[in-house]
Amino acid sequence: MLPWDGLDRRYGPWPEGVQVHVWDGTTPDGEPADEVLAQVGLWVMPYAVPDAARLLPRLPRLRAVQSLSAGVEKLLPLLPAGVALHNGRGLHDASTAEHALGLILAAQRDLPQWVADQADGRWEPHFTRSLADCRVTIVGYGSIGAALERRLLACEAQVVRVARRARPEQDVHAVSDLPGLLPDTDIVVLVLPENASTAGLFGAAELAALPDGALVVNVGRGRTLDTEALLAHTSTGRLRAALDVTDPEPLPADHPLRRCPGVLITPHVAGGSAAFRPRAERLIVEQVRRFADGRELLHPFPRD
Amino acid sequence: MLPWDGLDRRYGPWPEGVQVHVWDGTTPDGEPADEVLAQVGLWVMPYAVPDAARLLPRLPRLRAVQSLSAGVEKLLPLLPAGVALHNGRGLHDASTAEHALGLILAAQRDLPQWVADQADGRWEPHFTRSLADCRVTIVGYGSIGAALERRLLACEAQVVRVARRARPEQDVHAVSDLPGLLPDTDIVVLVLPENASTAGLFGAAELAALPDGALVVNVGRGRTLDTEALLAHTSTGRLRAALDVTDPEPLPADHPLRRCPGVLITPHVAGGSAAFRPRAERLIVEQVRRFADGRELLHPFPRD
Repeated sequence: MLPWDGLDRRYGPWPEGVQVHVWDGTTPDGEPADEVLAQVGLWVMPYAVPDAARLLPRLPRLRAVQSLSAGVEKLLPLLPAGVALHNGRGLHDASTAEHALGLILAAQRDLPQWVADQADGRWEPHFTRSLADCRVTIVGYGSIGAALERRLLACEAQVVRVARRARPEQDVHAVSDLPGLLPDTDIVVLVLPENASTAGLFGAAELAALPDGALVVNVGRGRTLDTEALLAHTSTGRLRAALDVTDPEPLPADHPLRRCPGVLITPHVAGGSAAFRPRAERLIVEQVRRFADGRELLHPFPRD
Repeated sequence: MLPWDGLDRRYGPWPEGVQVHVWDGTTPDGEPADEVLAQVGLWVMPYAVPDAARLLPRLPRLRAVQSLSAGVEKLLPLLPAGVALHNGRGLHDASTAEHALGLILAAQRDLPQWVADQADGRWEPHFTRSLADCRVTIVGYGSIGAALERRLLACEAQVVRVARRARPEQDVHAVSDLPGLLPDTDIVVLVLPENASTAGLFGAAELAALPDGALVVNVGRGRTLDTEALLAHTSTGRLRAALDVTDPEPLPADHPLRRCPGVLITPHVAGGSAAFRPRAERLIVEQVRRFADGRELLHPFPRD
């Protein structure tokens, strides 16, 4: 069961014997009948995740689920034993890194101010910060971080790599090195997955260690950043923030973060751009062929 | 006469015999007295250009003017014969390329929409365009264009180079090739100076040749793009635009471009960011030393 139609026309025919059912998962229209669902062996979940808790019990022959997301923390507890999970590792690297760069440039170059001025009829230029010459610390340095780093270096910024564990051969510092790194950081970018060890990882102590005026960017998961501590530093204007993910999410209409000076918020859209679709299509086609041939699927996600 | 104080403290002492007067040019405070102005041989103009028409007649010994801008079209007609002009070539490359990239990403990733949603309490994610995989045509490919190109390539976009004259050895097409290039262009970026041959260079025919949904970016000079023709294509939503320069400038509060869907406007701030200052300071110090030694100054700008 796939989310999108026409892949066989764009990428060549499906293997012999494979039956494909397409449902985009967002409306009841096109939802396969129970007798079809009963035959599904591989489910490629739509990016806008449908009600998996309701659907999974109706898929008795399910052997594998392909998520198009890198983060699968909501899906994991729902999945029956014996069903393999494959995640969308790498599919969102270009899209997420690009959005992170857009958030950074918007914050450094005061784009929210210019958007307001355009609407309000003002033309009042002022000097802004830049990204060039800034020191950017990427916390959670993996494939998205590497994609962001390539963009930042082209923008004449410097990059400091941080991950859970130090990887000295790749110049990657450990999270435990943050106290020494943050005072010299102009921009910190969180690209952390959500799990027990990352919840609240960037909290009051880390925020306090940043210099005045620093920018905190989060394109990972909202709960890795302590919202209350961030509010304390942004409501006074001491720190700035650009967040694609928040805690809670969706961010309530009256949440104080929305009105903090120097805080820019996008509604969890970093991974969801046109850059994602062709990369996802190529993975889906490859996984269906592997499934039909009985070969190992790419990107298995460990269950416990 | 210099715009900024303290350069000697940061870059070492001024040469013997050089007298430096600092005036930021934006307020009457600190404006040198007539007897000081009468001695000025080199004037480094502030970036926010003061009233040159009023000041130049009071500088009888002026031999050279250093502009911190690359475009000097407003200054040229005011300059007395015999006074050399030096422009700020290269000083704005990083800042301008960075702002152009910020405009492109803001437009492709719908940042103005998210800014409005943040203020209005909405959380309604949708898929957006991306920059990755786009074909970007840079019209006026020089040092700023090359700086932008490095950033775009890191963002996985493709770049097509266009300049007044073709330079086949550098893969640069001629402006006369535009009719063949524009139908395949997702994003066109104008980085043109203002002169007789560039006024209205990008007009109705060029805009009509772009495909539906294409983005028109201008970080050069407002008059190189035909405002009325752009309005015709953006008011219907057929094309989008991200403009740091406009015609006229400042853009009036009630100008229809301000309310066009898909049009993002910043008030001529591409060159004016923190990336500019250290690069400009290094040039000023070098020019003062050359002036004191009687050596040729850098970046002479041809007069006629």
